[in-house]
Amino acid sequence: MTALPVITPIADAVLAQRLQHRLDQKTKPRGALGRLESLALQIGLIQRSEAPVLHTRQLVVFAADHGLAAHGVSAYPSDVTWQMVENFLGGGAAVSVLARQHGLALTVVDAGVRHDFAPRVGLVDRKIAPGTASALGRPAMTAAQCTQAIAAGIEFARDLPGNVLLLGEMGIGNTSSAALLLARLADVDIAECVGRGTGLDDAGLARKRDVLDRVLRRHASAAQPLDVLAALGGFEIAMMVGAALQAASERRVVVVDGFICGAALLVAARLVPAVLDYCVFSHRSDEAGHARMLAHLGATPLLDLGLRLGEGSGAALAWPLIDSAVRLLNQMASFESAGVSDRGDA
Amino acid sequence: MTALPVITPIADAVLAQRLQHRLDQKTKPRGALGRLESLALQIGLIQRSEAPVLHTRQLVVFAADHGLAAHGVSAYPSDVTWQMVENFLGGGAAVSVLARQHGLALTVVDAGVRHDFAPRVGLVDRKIAPGTASALGRPAMTAAQCTQAIAAGIEFARDLPGNVLLLGEMGIGNTSSAALLLARLADVDIAECVGRGTGLDDAGLARKRDVLDRVLRRHASAAQPLDVLAALGGFEIAMMVGAALQAASERRVVVVDGFICGAALLVAARLVPAVLDYCVFSHRSDEAGHARMLAHLGATPLLDLGLRLGEGSGAALAWPLIDSAVRLLNQMASFESAGVSDRGDA
Repeated sequence: MTALPVITPIADAVLAQRLQHRLDQKTKPRGALGRLESLALQIGLIQRSEAPVLHTRQLVVFAADHGLAAHGVSAYPSDVTWQMVENFLGGGAAVSVLARQHGLALTVVDAGVRHDFAPRVGLVDRKIAPGTASALGRPAMTAAQCTQAIAAGIEFARDLPGNVLLLGEMGIGNTSSAALLLARLADVDIAECVGRGTGLDDAGLARKRDVLDRVLRRHASAAQPLDVLAALGGFEIAMMVGAALQAASERRVVVVDGFICGAALLVAARLVPAVLDYCVFSHRSDEAGHARMLAHLGATPLLDLGLRLGEGSGAALAWPLIDSAVRLLNQMASFESAGVSDRGDA
Repeated sequence: MTALPVITPIADAVLAQRLQHRLDQKTKPRGALGRLESLALQIGLIQRSEAPVLHTRQLVVFAADHGLAAHGVSAYPSDVTWQMVENFLGGGAAVSVLARQHGLALTVVDAGVRHDFAPRVGLVDRKIAPGTASALGRPAMTAAQCTQAIAAGIEFARDLPGNVLLLGEMGIGNTSSAALLLARLADVDIAECVGRGTGLDDAGLARKRDVLDRVLRRHASAAQPLDVLAALGGFEIAMMVGAALQAASERRVVVVDGFICGAALLVAARLVPAVLDYCVFSHRSDEAGHARMLAHLGATPLLDLGLRLGEGSGAALAWPLIDSAVRLLNQMASFESAGVSDRGDA
């Protein structure tokens, strides 16, 4: 396959100290901006700058269908994937509304939707195949499809403008893929990884758990990240793996949405661990396995609003906080410049 | 004193059902927007509308000094209050940066700062006195000052444009007032109410706890909300009590910042309980007693970012989420209008 992007860890003790000093000189008590201070510091390190600038942010929704959806693992039929893509493009989906609110350029990538779309502005065709195979029978993707999807994500991200990539996704059945990836890559019992997705009832949840348990046993030998991704993942997840790796290699900020995007980062981090240095985890979703996944990734999400929508809606909702962190770093006055007395012991 | 504003509870079962139905028809799984759905519903009920509109939002920072500050309860000297007011007006404070980011009109009300300000745009003079008395010796405010401050808050809010009031505050020493009000009004042990404020060290925290314990014993007989407010509060807190009550009586959305604004709402809710129907609690701060205060108020804050700054910074940071909730309610397509299949069992 294409060589994986090279990613440099962001650690830089000298710059980190200078950024922290800059934050400490702002007219506020030390550390009073909490999580926003560590965020400003991270973005400064990503951009190797004491005055980072975020521009031309891109919200990209990767969409694909899943063979597993035929086994009743979702409350919705597969057709909802393409219908929602139309809704994203038509401006009526949650992520469309939020992208408009925050001036985020919104692009939908057809990574493998089971539908023929007419070409149009805002939709990019990178279809690997019309949906994955059912992982109950064989790997969801062939090895070739999997590397093709990662390569497509790499190439797509390389061509994007701006220095912020917000990741979103759409794909009926993809919380199943994410749960499977979490179970295998983080060695978590599948029962702890499986949630109601878009709203399964108790019977549906039991069915989903049973199906996923069988899938895991079917692919018991898959252990290497690419094998696991091919066996259990999806086209949109594989493409996000590539896009996140490429964006990080170019020192962009990568804003990760929820459970499914998180699963892509789980794979990406196994391939190139430093990718996580570039990630901002936007929220903790209501999906059962997400807290477990975030803990495994060592991630502190910005929001915790009980969301369980995907689409990149959590990433879009967190965007203003990321923007705030950078603005506060750049625009706040210092004690000296504002003529404010610092504390006596400082 | 001036009669307290009359506030109508927002409960309306018919409208609530219609709002929930409207949310449920949106192209998303039921409840998938989590906390934003309950927020949209609350704002719809506040405005008695299925299509609420937020406009001309006002961020108001009430500032005043505290006699208790002379007893070493803060890491900063009292002069920082007026210096920070200058910084708010000069555009260099955190809340100034955030107000610019989100297009929030920012007004500073001098409720009782120990400083003579030159008149200027954005600063409103409602000074009751140059700082409260030390509550160690006598009530922080006389009964007359307390009712005067509440009345000033009522009148000020009455004259504000728009239908959203975001509350912020500034006052060296005012986490002490807030802790005292929490201890007395919610019957919480003072040790659980006292935090490091703007950054006290261990010795400072012990001193603050000791001072506040003595203050509480000094005013052991104060039990009625107005007596408690006069004995333990501050001019900015009393003015926020009036402003919140008036804004709620006009069915405005009241966005509450952190620990000190929360203390004002603690008092306001004791005077007119329905005021809480109109409040959106923006964040859970890092200040020790805040989680306890929010639980007492039955409030679910939107953000939890480890902030401990005040100024209205948390309210400003939460604003985009509030805006999002209303936009999602108004702008998202329905399953029918977007041609998206709903789940089979719906």
